[in-house]
Amino acid sequence: MKELTIPLKPDSRIPLYQQIYEYIKSDITDGKISPGEKLPSTRLLAGNLMVSRSTVDLAYDQLLSEGYVKTVPCSGYFVCEIETGFAKGDSRKKEMLRNRSKNLDGSRGWTEAVYGGFVSSETSHFSCDFSPNAIEWSDFSMASWRKAIKSMLQDEMEELFQPGSSQGEENLRRAICDYLHRARGVNCDIHQIIVGAGNEYLLMLLYQMLGAEQRVAMESPTYRQAYQIFRNLGWRVAPVPMDESGMMLAGLRESGARLAYIMPSHQFPLGNVMPMKRRTELLQWAGEEKGRYIIEDDYDSEFRYKGKPIPSLQGSDPYDSVIYLGTFSKSIAPAIRVSYMVLPPELMLLYQERCGFYSSTVSRIQQQILYHFVKDGYFERHLNKMRGIYRTRHDALLAELKGKRWVKRIYGENAGLHVLVEIDTIKTEEQLIEEAKSAGIRVYGLKEYAIEESAPGDMKAYTAEESPPGDGQRVGAFHRQQKHSTLLLGYAGLSEKKIQEGIRGLEKIV
Amino acid sequence: MKELTIPLKPDSRIPLYQQIYEYIKSDITDGKISPGEKLPSTRLLAGNLMVSRSTVDLAYDQLLSEGYVKTVPCSGYFVCEIETGFAKGDSRKKEMLRNRSKNLDGSRGWTEAVYGGFVSSETSHFSCDFSPNAIEWSDFSMASWRKAIKSMLQDEMEELFQPGSSQGEENLRRAICDYLHRARGVNCDIHQIIVGAGNEYLLMLLYQMLGAEQRVAMESPTYRQAYQIFRNLGWRVAPVPMDESGMMLAGLRESGARLAYIMPSHQFPLGNVMPMKRRTELLQWAGEEKGRYIIEDDYDSEFRYKGKPIPSLQGSDPYDSVIYLGTFSKSIAPAIRVSYMVLPPELMLLYQERCGFYSSTVSRIQQQILYHFVKDGYFERHLNKMRGIYRTRHDALLAELKGKRWVKRIYGENAGLHVLVEIDTIKTEEQLIEEAKSAGIRVYGLKEYAIEESAPGDMKAYTAEESPPGDGQRVGAFHRQQKHSTLLLGYAGLSEKKIQEGIRGLEKIV
Repeated sequence: MKELTIPLKPDSRIPLYQQIYEYIKSDITDGKISPGEKLPSTRLLAGNLMVSRSTVDLAYDQLLSEGYVKTVPCSGYFVCEIETGFAKGDSRKKEMLRNRSKNLDGSRGWTEAVYGGFVSSETSHFSCDFSPNAIEWSDFSMASWRKAIKSMLQDEMEELFQPGSSQGEENLRRAICDYLHRARGVNCDIHQIIVGAGNEYLLMLLYQMLGAEQRVAMESPTYRQAYQIFRNLGWRVAPVPMDESGMMLAGLRESGARLAYIMPSHQFPLGNVMPMKRRTELLQWAGEEKGRYIIEDDYDSEFRYKGKPIPSLQGSDPYDSVIYLGTFSKSIAPAIRVSYMVLPPELMLLYQERCGFYSSTVSRIQQQILYHFVKDGYFERHLNKMRGIYRTRHDALLAELKGKRWVKRIYGENAGLHVLVEIDTIKTEEQLIEEAKSAGIRVYGLKEYAIEESAPGDMKAYTAEESPPGDGQRVGAFHRQQKHSTLLLGYAGLSEKKIQEGIRGLEKIV
Repeated sequence: MKELTIPLKPDSRIPLYQQIYEYIKSDITDGKISPGEKLPSTRLLAGNLMVSRSTVDLAYDQLLSEGYVKTVPCSGYFVCEIETGFAKGDSRKKEMLRNRSKNLDGSRGWTEAVYGGFVSSETSHFSCDFSPNAIEWSDFSMASWRKAIKSMLQDEMEELFQPGSSQGEENLRRAICDYLHRARGVNCDIHQIIVGAGNEYLLMLLYQMLGAEQRVAMESPTYRQAYQIFRNLGWRVAPVPMDESGMMLAGLRESGARLAYIMPSHQFPLGNVMPMKRRTELLQWAGEEKGRYIIEDDYDSEFRYKGKPIPSLQGSDPYDSVIYLGTFSKSIAPAIRVSYMVLPPELMLLYQERCGFYSSTVSRIQQQILYHFVKDGYFERHLNKMRGIYRTRHDALLAELKGKRWVKRIYGENAGLHVLVEIDTIKTEEQLIEEAKSAGIRVYGLKEYAIEESAPGDMKAYTAEESPPGDGQRVGAFHRQQKHSTLLLGYAGLSEKKIQEGIRGLEKIV
């Protein structure tokens, strides 16, 4: 058995289990521990290192899930045969990097593998993950995708190696345009559509069109990924309070922002649908001044289980002030990486001036596959099928929650891929999440989606306690809701059985 | 014959030919001019509109190249049957847009189609385009790409619909890592590699890691696309003078920049190779202070026709200060949209913190196709083949230029995909370009690649006349070169016959 002396740094920002994981992993990839060698038991190593056994457990779990070690029942952990793939000299280089990182800053290290690894493994610890971002992949018809690939292969492939349109393939844009018109009431022509590799990228383009000196109003809570990218890019984010109708006008005006990011069809995470009155007010605000724009993120509008689909805000915009964002990430899969943006005409000019020389970030081959997938009807068939599956899961979750004494209120249902559950408990969201975690269930607290101002000092956002002029009675509605611990329960990635198990597990905790 | 009264705006920023093109195109798509109708002759329309005939020619050429009209020999221009593809209501919408644009700002209009159209058509006017950015597609082995697609299809495709690594597929990164190590002497491991949809996207990520408050030193002349993106993102660009060795140290120090963007293996557009001494000096500069980085753009290092390949700067960097950028755009085709970046360890931490939650912009399917293409040896075979083809064209171009009295000097040869030719003429580059254009030949003037400061006032770059301390004798070397008109002649996209024709055509002009 291999003896391990691991120089742990208890003061480091890197958790102990990550340090252990990293150390052993390096020793394996560097060949210091050979394939077949046995690792010390978790009890033994924990004793030697004077850390808790669960710390070592976590590190071993990580090594296990990444295939560096395997367990032999009743015997212990053994190092696997791995293909390191490192070219000569890399292990020396890694050593150097490690040393350099140590010297640079005692609390920071060479942790990409660790960060990267743990992100993906976090979920694997859970037997039931109510992630609001999950979708179901296993029901995706691979056969139809393969057919789309085959149709693409029959096209003139030579053509696809020549530079294409910066905005995306014309036939794909036409297919998207038709779909948006029919399904979302979006009013545009193909010249206004830009296809890109994900919403993040499209927002990066938007940043370059609109310039660095922007302030963007966002609801709080909101979609944190968009918030994070605005911050990354250097835009100031002004959180604006919301009521049941969505972003409040007084707060928006007060914020001084010229951009408003909203999800009128289905607010994330609250699930609100913005009523016509508020839509009109927001459009009015945008129409009042040149350079004001509304970013409409229509991320999951495909999924609606009750009533008629709610048309896009863009479709009723008389001022050409709406920037419409849509994606195939929810409707097909995030991994295909295709989103699209519909720009108002003036912004198209800016796009051409500043970004028109960029090549499309989606390869022409990928675009053609998707074009065939949409054009040949596979996309709509897939949507219909998924709508059915998600509806069944949605209903199963609601049925499971029904009549539970600890369920104070359910909202955000009938659309999208998650619901919100206000819990009748004295426990905080953090406590609930932590306790669910030990039961192997992953849940998400609403508070995680609240945002704060991104550039302190020069921007002021309302708090729940303050009343902005003229909109007083609605202020702080969200904060009032938040008196109770509220969980987001995503159901798209869970079978009905899993949903049942998960809710029964939760019941023991709340 | 259709009579056309086109309300031209001579004061508009939109050229008259674009206005004419746009107007007729709208009338065709809106059905105001029917398929089969004859357009007025260019002479007649020019007379009616009181513009020059070449203005109308340009507009008609554009309509012709986009398939809106066709010519009938000895008869004239006729409107084609077109599939408009616009959903109902779009023509009304377009009308509205047009009106709104008019009202908004007299000098700006709805010109995306125009801009977009003209970009792609510009080249089509030329019988011989010496573009330094062209590559040869027709020799790409579609069969091998199809094979790679088939290998990908045999993999577990289900897997490819699940979220992948933010940095890119591990197997692709490993293949890139091996290639970079072997072919470019890059010292890294796969955890330092980020795969992205094009250099532009990777530079956008870099911007987010390094923050808005950066100044980046660039050589002048340089790769304008990088310059443009830095400006778009809001970084200040400090142009630094160069000598035959590349970016000059004194200028770099004076600029106050903490980032230096260089192409040490083959400077674009000048073709210089940075000698070891300057490399060491630059690395020294970077090592002196934390937070200084060198962005090494190794864009076309695959193509070298004489001598040994020059290893990357990254490979000899003892300070982990080099950010290495590479791409498959030159070596395969821009349309496949895959680039990669090798980050120093500290930047990996920043990447994880700020950008780790972004999905890779290259779809997993595309990454797997490329992985198979590289792994199965098709990539190296393709490179060897293309090297042979480009070498032949390079030699043909040099042979054609040899002994010509108007060729004062040739430089930047033996590598890359273009050479520079200093012309013995009293004509300016603009004149040469213009006259070549009328002969159907497209050439590129060196002056187009010069850059200016991006944020005036607070930054000062040397001019040729000033001598920075300690480096005096080398200052202004580039500006001295530029006494003569210098053309960039790209040969990668031209057959030997075309090269011959092109040079013979040029000869009549210079």
